[in-house]
Amino acid sequence: MLKKTGRYDAFKLKWHPCYSDPPTVYPIPNHQFWDSDVAKWIEGACYLLVDRYDAEIDLAVQELVQMIREAQDPDGYLNIHYSVVEPGKRFTNLRDMHELYNAGHLIEGALAHRLYYKNNEMMTPILKYADLLAATLGDQEGQIPGYPGHPEIELALLRLYKVTNDPKHLKLALFFVEERGNASGGEEKRHYYDVEAEARGESEHDLPMYYPAAKSYWYQQAHLPIVDQMTVEGHSVRAMYLLTAVADLVRIEQPDSDFGTKYLPTLHQLWSNMIEKKSYVTGGIGAMKKWEGFGMDYFLPHGTDEGGCYAETCAAIGVMMLAERLLQVELNGHYADIMELCLYNAVLTSMSLDGKAFTYVNQLASSDQDLSQRHEWFECACCPPNVTRTLGFLGGYIWSHTVEDSGAVVNVHLYTSATLALQIGESKVEITQKTNWPWEGDVQFDIRTDQSLLDIQLRLRVPGWVKSWEITPRPDQFDVQDGYLYLGAEWLQNNPSFRFSCPMQPRLVRPHPLAMQPVVYIMRGPIVYCIEDIDHPWEKNHFKMTMFNPESHLREEIRSQPDQHVAIVADKGAAGDLDTSSWNGQITAESKNETSGEARKLHFIPYYLRANRGGRDELTTE
Amino acid sequence: MLKKTGRYDAFKLKWHPCYSDPPTVYPIPNHQFWDSDVAKWIEGACYLLVDRYDAEIDLAVQELVQMIREAQDPDGYLNIHYSVVEPGKRFTNLRDMHELYNAGHLIEGALAHRLYYKNNEMMTPILKYADLLAATLGDQEGQIPGYPGHPEIELALLRLYKVTNDPKHLKLALFFVEERGNASGGEEKRHYYDVEAEARGESEHDLPMYYPAAKSYWYQQAHLPIVDQMTVEGHSVRAMYLLTAVADLVRIEQPDSDFGTKYLPTLHQLWSNMIEKKSYVTGGIGAMKKWEGFGMDYFLPHGTDEGGCYAETCAAIGVMMLAERLLQVELNGHYADIMELCLYNAVLTSMSLDGKAFTYVNQLASSDQDLSQRHEWFECACCPPNVTRTLGFLGGYIWSHTVEDSGAVVNVHLYTSATLALQIGESKVEITQKTNWPWEGDVQFDIRTDQSLLDIQLRLRVPGWVKSWEITPRPDQFDVQDGYLYLGAEWLQNNPSFRFSCPMQPRLVRPHPLAMQPVVYIMRGPIVYCIEDIDHPWEKNHFKMTMFNPESHLREEIRSQPDQHVAIVADKGAAGDLDTSSWNGQITAESKNETSGEARKLHFIPYYLRANRGGRDELTTE
Repeated sequence: MLKKTGRYDAFKLKWHPCYSDPPTVYPIPNHQFWDSDVAKWIEGACYLLVDRYDAEIDLAVQELVQMIREAQDPDGYLNIHYSVVEPGKRFTNLRDMHELYNAGHLIEGALAHRLYYKNNEMMTPILKYADLLAATLGDQEGQIPGYPGHPEIELALLRLYKVTNDPKHLKLALFFVEERGNASGGEEKRHYYDVEAEARGESEHDLPMYYPAAKSYWYQQAHLPIVDQMTVEGHSVRAMYLLTAVADLVRIEQPDSDFGTKYLPTLHQLWSNMIEKKSYVTGGIGAMKKWEGFGMDYFLPHGTDEGGCYAETCAAIGVMMLAERLLQVELNGHYADIMELCLYNAVLTSMSLDGKAFTYVNQLASSDQDLSQRHEWFECACCPPNVTRTLGFLGGYIWSHTVEDSGAVVNVHLYTSATLALQIGESKVEITQKTNWPWEGDVQFDIRTDQSLLDIQLRLRVPGWVKSWEITPRPDQFDVQDGYLYLGAEWLQNNPSFRFSCPMQPRLVRPHPLAMQPVVYIMRGPIVYCIEDIDHPWEKNHFKMTMFNPESHLREEIRSQPDQHVAIVADKGAAGDLDTSSWNGQITAESKNETSGEARKLHFIPYYLRANRGGRDELTTE
Repeated sequence: MLKKTGRYDAFKLKWHPCYSDPPTVYPIPNHQFWDSDVAKWIEGACYLLVDRYDAEIDLAVQELVQMIREAQDPDGYLNIHYSVVEPGKRFTNLRDMHELYNAGHLIEGALAHRLYYKNNEMMTPILKYADLLAATLGDQEGQIPGYPGHPEIELALLRLYKVTNDPKHLKLALFFVEERGNASGGEEKRHYYDVEAEARGESEHDLPMYYPAAKSYWYQQAHLPIVDQMTVEGHSVRAMYLLTAVADLVRIEQPDSDFGTKYLPTLHQLWSNMIEKKSYVTGGIGAMKKWEGFGMDYFLPHGTDEGGCYAETCAAIGVMMLAERLLQVELNGHYADIMELCLYNAVLTSMSLDGKAFTYVNQLASSDQDLSQRHEWFECACCPPNVTRTLGFLGGYIWSHTVEDSGAVVNVHLYTSATLALQIGESKVEITQKTNWPWEGDVQFDIRTDQSLLDIQLRLRVPGWVKSWEITPRPDQFDVQDGYLYLGAEWLQNNPSFRFSCPMQPRLVRPHPLAMQPVVYIMRGPIVYCIEDIDHPWEKNHFKMTMFNPESHLREEIRSQPDQHVAIVADKGAAGDLDTSSWNGQITAESKNETSGEARKLHFIPYYLRANRGGRDELTTE
């Protein structure tokens, strides 16, 4: 798709006919993100090449990197749009344009490239670009006191800093985070986006399509300094990327700064607001299509015909990124629960089983306006390569660890079949988990070491949704802290093989009462279930009138189509159809909600498997 | 207030300092509606002077009319803004500016003025202005092929036509109605608002504040020709005023046009869509604040913190206007039910008992963002004088009649204490109804005639909400058609005094299930009830957590504060508080909605009496 759409060759800096297309989302040129599409593909490719070498992909990465090297301006600048379409306009619209966002993805691409290729072919030009950015942007005289409309470079710079330890990478990231939302910034003591818009000669009524009103800077989380924000607002991907950088900052120790004290309360506040009041059952966030972001507290409609259910794929990936960082800040199973929820539902649902079709929006219920469909590609194609790199980086979500001289602490956040290989001093350790998760809850662990007295400690997440769990052999006593079972070195030395078991069974969950959704959801383990029209040929209108009987018996069935999964069947799950005849021609009626028609069988399939079997593309999770 | 704010003297065409204020609602100058504020006040004053003469008001009307006469341009043009602020720019922005809307209200004012003063002091200049408009706008060569962004002049011209019978008044109204939404209109075969915006040199991204996106012409009901519209969309006052004109057209007989065949299906379609899917329990319409209008089907949140509940006063008045016209097209009690519902709830609630404070927005539930408060005045002050003229014209809503040589048919739509005096040939007839409606359901009718054999027929609305009714003396048989009890001349000659009784008792009603509001409302007769914090000092958060027990006994209490009314008390109406602790820190929970705390007494007061007794301005209707 990169080749087909022109993105692959874009770093050759030739004119592409689509560069003159009017923006679909004014004022952002449609090709504005191309740099990041390529960079994210490189990042994902480099992760996945580790798993399975592919000569064509290897060659493509190298070819792209060569193009990127050649596209660089002598002064280090590196951007397709501003090199080809608007030369001379660089850094004049940080608010709307994705110049620094693209730079961030180039940095992340370079980090992955260096990891796989173990050379600096990509890193060298990117470091040069970072030097230019560090020289150009900041609070010193002659610098542009601005920050990106779409955060991303902050977290990228902090990832880079971890590798380079170059203070200017930290400094620039910190400047971007701290200056953001400053109403009296720069020499003019004004909001940078005001200053910048004025310099562009822009009327305040010339509204970007995603702005509900003039100066809707909350869209960019730039309405207030981050530490003063009490609710998570605006474009949800931007919010997650920004908070991920903030969480990264917390772990950075500096002689004269305590980032934890400064930022941890904000992270807690915004995370809680998001989870309690602005998240869907799938972990999806951002109900509102217009600004691809958060609505009001508890405003969580299930589909377009109810007012929205955007739940962008990239935003759920952002939640995973943030959760992954927070788990490093404080080991709490809650973050891993949310990370797992997002992965299996809000993220996995975005790709078809054959890996060739994607969603951008992940609604909980379809409607005539928005069927349950995947697409081959998007004009703004942020999601597909984001899924690629997320799946490539899955190991980073499954576990985290710290290695010391004679041992290691390994935190197991997610369960799947995987192996972690560690080098501890002179010793090699392999920790393997084997499971049919999420269909079965038994996980077999095996620790293989080349010497028996290593101080290995394991911390296993106890999912928040389990009612009981077991570990075999059974320790004399358990140490569970904040949702993690702490297994000490001694017990593990005696029990290098053990089984951790989380029984799974269907359960009904409900949204917060203030969300005013008169629904229940079916979950089993981390999986959210849905129903699709293909299993229910009697369905006429997206299941809107189907009344679920919450007392019905939920039976599990192992199925292999469209892929191995546990389906759930409720033989009389549909109590009948909602009878609204009392309301015909009326505003209100004295009737209670009544049901007509016969009870029918409902087939529930994991939400992420939706839209893989044909049908009329109707679904609901309710 | 007209004097205090500068409106009273504005037709003197002097500069007012506020004329240079930036628009609060871009791009509409704040003083844009001043002409209409004055005209609506004149209209209301002329209606009310009939009831009770007041020398000060009489003098003010005469003074204003004199100013209007002097403000008229020699060519007939008459508009404050374009005479004082933007001379030379007349008719260049029909889409946003209220030039023709103002003209419509001037016409309606002139009609009321002529009715009361029985002279043409106001009518003469207005007819001259109408001549100019008829010459300037239309589909002939050299004419501007445009139509007003805010309908009003259409219905005003049709009211005028009924008096003047001048075909150019009908023709202009018809042109405005039929050209509206024409995508290939005028010589350029394009949408007039596109042509006009281009002529102004306007960027399509220069968005009026009420436009969610470029060219949101549905805001003005100009996205499609009216006959092609299947759902009622956009600004709700505009929609109601437009449809009122369309309903007026239906009753006009023309040799070569059957307006009924053409427009009645559209009226039925849009009315049904509005009532079934876009109306609040109070009859209020238009959930969305941004465009002061309709949201999606069934999107009817109760307050700002749920996503809206605009329910503008003027829009409810518009529903009454439309219902009043539809009742003349087809006598059906359903229209009168809605008219009564709007009057007692969505309209009456907009004025404080002392007549000095008003609402613009009529939410069903308050929130911290929007308390339940009235205000002395508004920058855009359409609502207060609209209430004035509506109350002044109440007789027109109570009954309609047709008089012929030897008799009359009188339709009684609303019950209250009132007298209708008719001249039938040489005879005088007085029909009087006397009742304590809506607190009691007995209505005493008396027909007084100076000769006994007149062919008087009465049709009494049987409210849709009554379960049973009685008429005393009791006729041998009843003729009820479409919600009206038809009483014939013979029975009435024998029973010139009779009583019609509709027992009233509290009832619980529910919104349509697809509105997904887990609430019940309490009604009694046409009155919707609410609860206020002043009666419930234990209330903390706008009753959001108070769980009503729908099984509780509802007891009536006659009260005299803040005004005579029947209150409803439920001794254990509050089952307790919603317990949401299971959701703390979670997206979903397995818990059902549970209640904690003790059952408590709830006091229900008519919604229209809200915010007359102090308190913390918290209310809910749920």
